[in-house]
Amino acid sequence: MEVWFTEKQTPNLAISCRVNKVLCSEQTPFQKLAILDTLEFGRMLTLDNVIQTTVKDEFIYHEMITHVGLNTHPNPRQVLVIGGGDGGSIREVVKHRQVEKARMVEIDGRVIEAAKEFLPELSCGYADPRVEILVDDGIKHVKDHQDAYDMIVVDSTDPVGPAKGLFNEAFYQNVHSALKEDGLFVAQTESPFFNRKLIKDIHQVLRRIFPIVRLYMAYIPTYPGGLWTFTIGSKRHDPVKAALDGLGDFNNKYYSPAVHRSAFVLPPFVEELVK
Amino acid sequence: MEVWFTEKQTPNLAISCRVNKVLCSEQTPFQKLAILDTLEFGRMLTLDNVIQTTVKDEFIYHEMITHVGLNTHPNPRQVLVIGGGDGGSIREVVKHRQVEKARMVEIDGRVIEAAKEFLPELSCGYADPRVEILVDDGIKHVKDHQDAYDMIVVDSTDPVGPAKGLFNEAFYQNVHSALKEDGLFVAQTESPFFNRKLIKDIHQVLRRIFPIVRLYMAYIPTYPGGLWTFTIGSKRHDPVKAALDGLGDFNNKYYSPAVHRSAFVLPPFVEELVK
Repeated sequence: MEVWFTEKQTPNLAISCRVNKVLCSEQTPFQKLAILDTLEFGRMLTLDNVIQTTVKDEFIYHEMITHVGLNTHPNPRQVLVIGGGDGGSIREVVKHRQVEKARMVEIDGRVIEAAKEFLPELSCGYADPRVEILVDDGIKHVKDHQDAYDMIVVDSTDPVGPAKGLFNEAFYQNVHSALKEDGLFVAQTESPFFNRKLIKDIHQVLRRIFPIVRLYMAYIPTYPGGLWTFTIGSKRHDPVKAALDGLGDFNNKYYSPAVHRSAFVLPPFVEELVK
Repeated sequence: MEVWFTEKQTPNLAISCRVNKVLCSEQTPFQKLAILDTLEFGRMLTLDNVIQTTVKDEFIYHEMITHVGLNTHPNPRQVLVIGGGDGGSIREVVKHRQVEKARMVEIDGRVIEAAKEFLPELSCGYADPRVEILVDDGIKHVKDHQDAYDMIVVDSTDPVGPAKGLFNEAFYQNVHSALKEDGLFVAQTESPFFNRKLIKDIHQVLRRIFPIVRLYMAYIPTYPGGLWTFTIGSKRHDPVKAALDGLGDFNNKYYSPAVHRSAFVLPPFVEELVK
């Protein structure tokens, strides 16, 4: 017998992965959570039937949502991750020795617990003494913390369900206030093929809030279309002009200083979203 | 009723596209040919049930398999396309004014005819007076032509079925002989995620034949994993060092001089294939 998991990435496009075993499947107070053991990508986390991350390809997303910003900021000591309950982003953040505090605010504690049990490759960073985990609302958290962080990573699901409030102007204003005077934030901002209006809208909103706004790309095989965008809003440091010499070698598989620079080179069909 | 086309990209991974209408479906002497009208990607060409190209995303593949090499060679006058019956590559080749002859050798005449009927956006280049179409075996063609071409584009299907002979040392030796003394060739060389051994093997073989061998990448949403590689073998001109100033503006949607350069920046997990 063959068992397949299928995600409708759009109403007219689907990805299917053959499943060895369903390790966990439950309704949390916030969403449907499942961890599947797939033959192609190893263990896979899905939320509301949408692929979030897999053991085989997660390195791309997690290296690119963290190191680009962390290597742009000259001294990122206080770092906040919003969402990211699987632990992959925190694992990358604590590779940076300057980081003194890596705080994660994840709204759904069940994601954290499931990651600890089934995704040790991702959640291993939780053991670092600099990590603090809060099961709380990230929207409320940034509202309540001002001038507190050097970098904020918005490691969210798609802009539906619990993550809806992480894609609007009021939230970005509060992120701006929660950052120190030379802070920056990074958010995953969906597909340049399927979410073009969203990317454009976010860019325009952020330009009213941050002096430096940059879009960059990475390729994520399990996300719709395979190409993904991230957006940086920064108060002072420009990721395009970052000095990337003398960085530590974290045995990255996707990120490198050259990849950092080339990630900001946008093909014309993407460039036109941010003009 | 919903009709879906499904391609098993690997034994454990599938992509499915909702289909509005099957425009053409037949067995040619070489392969199963179909043209589907899909809701997500518009008209789509499949061969042996594998997606070859779609009207919505074809610009990426066709711009990247042609302009990188054509802008590396200082004066590409005689150009050969092997395969590429849909016409997309020829359409891009004839955008270059230096090109005096764009010859296409496609083994399956039915692909050419179907493209002319159902894919005018791709096959429109066939009308250019510099284009010559031969329905013939590309392997035999390069064997029979020596010192004839400035650039050869190997726009093939996957290395199974009719394209199997386009991925081995004897063929690459004949490509080398068919090129003029400063000629270069480009081939599509599959996914750095799913075809790692193939990419590595091709690279090693080509290094024994060409003094300059380079791997570059582009993102193709309808191909497995969304990230794709191309390999250049060149007798003299290095695509990494190409002078890209003063190029004509072809209203490209993916290719630009900056994209040309960044396409050769490989993430470490790809770089290790060509070390």
